[in-house]
Amino acid sequence: MDLSQIGEFGLIGILKDKIAKRADTVVGIGDDAAVIEIRNNYKMLNPKNKTKYLLVTTDALVEGVHFRIEKGNKQFFFNLGYKALLANISDIAAMGGYPTHALATLGLPPKTKVESIEQLYAGINALAKRYKIDIIGGDTVASPKALFISITLLGEVEKKNLLLRSGAKTGHLICVTGRFGGASAKKYAIGGARYSARIRTARLLAKSGAVSAMIDSSDGLAPSIGEICKASKVGARIWEAKIPIAKGAALSQALYGGEEYELVFTVQKNQLEALKRKKIDIAVVGEVVGTKKEIKLVDNEGKIKELKSDGFDHFK
Amino acid sequence: MDLSQIGEFGLIGILKDKIAKRADTVVGIGDDAAVIEIRNNYKMLNPKNKTKYLLVTTDALVEGVHFRIEKGNKQFFFNLGYKALLANISDIAAMGGYPTHALATLGLPPKTKVESIEQLYAGINALAKRYKIDIIGGDTVASPKALFISITLLGEVEKKNLLLRSGAKTGHLICVTGRFGGASAKKYAIGGARYSARIRTARLLAKSGAVSAMIDSSDGLAPSIGEICKASKVGARIWEAKIPIAKGAALSQALYGGEEYELVFTVQKNQLEALKRKKIDIAVVGEVVGTKKEIKLVDNEGKIKELKSDGFDHFK
Repeated sequence: MDLSQIGEFGLIGILKDKIAKRADTVVGIGDDAAVIEIRNNYKMLNPKNKTKYLLVTTDALVEGVHFRIEKGNKQFFFNLGYKALLANISDIAAMGGYPTHALATLGLPPKTKVESIEQLYAGINALAKRYKIDIIGGDTVASPKALFISITLLGEVEKKNLLLRSGAKTGHLICVTGRFGGASAKKYAIGGARYSARIRTARLLAKSGAVSAMIDSSDGLAPSIGEICKASKVGARIWEAKIPIAKGAALSQALYGGEEYELVFTVQKNQLEALKRKKIDIAVVGEVVGTKKEIKLVDNEGKIKELKSDGFDHFK
Repeated sequence: MDLSQIGEFGLIGILKDKIAKRADTVVGIGDDAAVIEIRNNYKMLNPKNKTKYLLVTTDALVEGVHFRIEKGNKQFFFNLGYKALLANISDIAAMGGYPTHALATLGLPPKTKVESIEQLYAGINALAKRYKIDIIGGDTVASPKALFISITLLGEVEKKNLLLRSGAKTGHLICVTGRFGGASAKKYAIGGARYSARIRTARLLAKSGAVSAMIDSSDGLAPSIGEICKASKVGARIWEAKIPIAKGAALSQALYGGEEYELVFTVQKNQLEALKRKKIDIAVVGEVVGTKKEIKLVDNEGKIKELKSDGFDHFK
């Protein structure tokens, strides 16, 4: 059965039945807007610590640009839904927060199989369930020429735990989680379900008080460090020998491959031991130097090269 | 100049400069997620009245489905951006609330002119400015075959002012703002800047305490009444003679034309006079009857017909 047979309203009916329910979701899908209880009512007890910020992020994937539909791959639509939500969760993690509610907009060619859409939602729901995210809305529209998926994710962070890109200072160490270049070495179009978002580690880092700036690595390691440098008005020096390169990946793939959802962050030197005692699995790859927004790579022979810090540009 | 020349990062630079700034926007565009101050801190003073809900809605428009690009029309892209945000504002209004923050995702063919994108944002910004909405994020992606725009809008509503679709009861009057069928009689593809969102009227209605259910009319008058009936588990009877039909429009266009952003709501009979005293410009078009979810139209000869209450389905 394809979409043109069951139609938009049939689809909304199917999707509505699959929705989880958080205690703070007052109205989910089905009215003009979703309604969420704002749980920020602890001012009397502990004015500073309990006061939270609301976080919002959005990320879109377009057929032919970010992915091609792999007809022989039965996991494809599951992975696509999974990855679309994962990219957003990773953004919330990089702020030091945790996700709460998501809206999923699908642009669907009318010939799309209903089973494919169910798989896509199964991928979204698998991650949503794991991280206790409610799907509270979205839009389902026809898109005759290319499938697209656009997810908006809400989250929360305690004020004291908020981590921006802009806090790095000269002398801070540049650290990462995980390994780099694996997705691009393996040519994963939609690596999707192969990855986790680093929510747990990000929360530990945020609560540690040791981290001065954080970003996720979805645009690639070097561009992510470049974004911290730009926002913090600093430079970076990284050591080739210290970069955790994924098995089978080249250095260039580790630096620019992207499509991975690791954390890149800066730490005050005297706080590193404290982080290590907490058994958070991180690697130091470089240090913040000076105020010139450039990234230098010290290679394995000790030679210094300047690194390009631009991300991949889909319009060029 | 087209997009493939300035690129994604150039575009983000252009857009970032145009952002307004609300006092509760802590971080707008430029980090992994936007950060918003949750202003719900009045529990000590007035525990019930000051406690708000967060509202979230999203709406997408796709080229070839919701609009065709009118090359000769210099206002086209302005109107498109305006309409994309208007549709979302109308949804927040229909909940009794007011909008606060928006995220705008654009899917753009690389040959799109930069001037067109600036016009599109000018349309979004014109409305955002009028209603004090901050554009705090979004995503700009390539979409080779069709332009699309997907906006997510946040808003707030005091708990006591929240209006759902589900509160209509037998005996309540069915009321509307404005006139119907004009957009479809004039074949506006993107009527955009010709319309306003009924935020002010919606807020007056919500605060009046007289309204039991509300929805916006973007899917058409009859389908909107149908949604109230479905959610409230009631039936409706409407009078042809009472429907405010736009000049030049036929009854069928008034009932099913859609693409208008009026309010459709139900009011307890004994509250109608109080509303009229407040000089809110509304028309009574029918009444809530029984518990069978059907809409009957009483025509000008007194004959009763059953009305289809389905909206337009883009997949069929």
